[in-house]
Amino acid sequence: MNVERILHHFPLDPASRQVRLALGEKRLPFTDNPVRYWERPKELSQLNPSGMVPVLVEKTDRGTLVLCEARAILDHLEETVVEPALLGRNAAERAEARRLLQWFDRKFEYEAGGFILHEKMEKRLLGLGAPELANLRQGREGLKNHLWYIDQLLAEREWLAGKRLSLADFAAAAHLSVIDYFGDVPWGDFASVKTWYMKLKSRPAFRPLLMDRWPGLTPAKHYDDLDF
Amino acid sequence: MNVERILHHFPLDPASRQVRLALGEKRLPFTDNPVRYWERPKELSQLNPSGMVPVLVEKTDRGTLVLCEARAILDHLEETVVEPALLGRNAAERAEARRLLQWFDRKFEYEAGGFILHEKMEKRLLGLGAPELANLRQGREGLKNHLWYIDQLLAEREWLAGKRLSLADFAAAAHLSVIDYFGDVPWGDFASVKTWYMKLKSRPAFRPLLMDRWPGLTPAKHYDDLDF
Repeated sequence: MNVERILHHFPLDPASRQVRLALGEKRLPFTDNPVRYWERPKELSQLNPSGMVPVLVEKTDRGTLVLCEARAILDHLEETVVEPALLGRNAAERAEARRLLQWFDRKFEYEAGGFILHEKMEKRLLGLGAPELANLRQGREGLKNHLWYIDQLLAEREWLAGKRLSLADFAAAAHLSVIDYFGDVPWGDFASVKTWYMKLKSRPAFRPLLMDRWPGLTPAKHYDDLDF
Repeated sequence: MNVERILHHFPLDPASRQVRLALGEKRLPFTDNPVRYWERPKELSQLNPSGMVPVLVEKTDRGTLVLCEARAILDHLEETVVEPALLGRNAAERAEARRLLQWFDRKFEYEAGGFILHEKMEKRLLGLGAPELANLRQGREGLKNHLWYIDQLLAEREWLAGKRLSLADFAAAAHLSVIDYFGDVPWGDFASVKTWYMKLKSRPAFRPLLMDRWPGLTPAKHYDDLDF
């Protein structure tokens, strides 16, 4: 069946990036619609009452399907485009990938990413002034703890959820990649995390993310460097 | 296949309650292990590195499966115990149920439940003193907006995600039911939400939740009343 896909997203939103990575890995072409979600555009809130990105619209002969929020989109893609499987091939693999999805989308964002991105990105987008150093510091401390946790996982595994690349890797990389845009990931202290991230960075699905630039937000010099 | 299930949970945790409702609705018996998660018990952090409830352990002849975090558990139950289906029977129904899962677990908790439960429950459990009225007020304002949104959904639908009872109803009811334990839901102003909640409350799966009592936390008088 022929499916036309339109992704409404914000390039520097970790949730949106997870969906772009999954679409890329499954080699599903889509029309790219970057949205300034903080300006509450009507088109977006008509698609998703929460007013949030990402939203994926799928059009087929049988009608239009609107998928709101990253997890709903990722689950739908897993159900409808089975290969490559990104959520594991048995119950234990899926349980571990899903545990880590929650870990990064909730715990990482709450303890690390949320602080850093609010201070370095959202404040600039919203014109809310300079970053508060205490918040940045707290986010960077949280980030170190999470990098340490990823390091522990990688001591025993090739990918975060086990033997196979999964949505858990994309979730972690999506969150880290936006922080990396702002140059705040201390890669030098976490060699095995860096190696894992380099492997992800060199996948074709990752390339569009490395080309993202947003007016007024300059990426760190090494941001798009595959051998950083 | 014979499955022995143990649920590690906190009775007044909305995420844990979603899992209990799903287990109840699918008529899956389980051993109940209430956990004082805020005391960081070692048994819990060994099962789930985040130290959070709920955790479902499934034991079969083939081994033990540890499922951490509500969404992972709910997804696993949908995949392994197909009837009754709680996530919709086609892509559009599932997309809508999943959109609302995110809505309640994230937006509702962030704008309403988080404030109220932190002030009325967590502070007491942790011995952090009296509730701050400004926070409570903000939570109650948020709660009204969400009740209004539920009301809008129910104007066109029998259940929150459409024609069929789904995890979206359980998510909303799980969050609301804990707030209702503390007597903070203004049912009188939202008649159709109240009718919907009464229907849920009278389901057998809901009964164990109405019997929950936690030392030091007294429920509102109408809490377990089916005709409140």
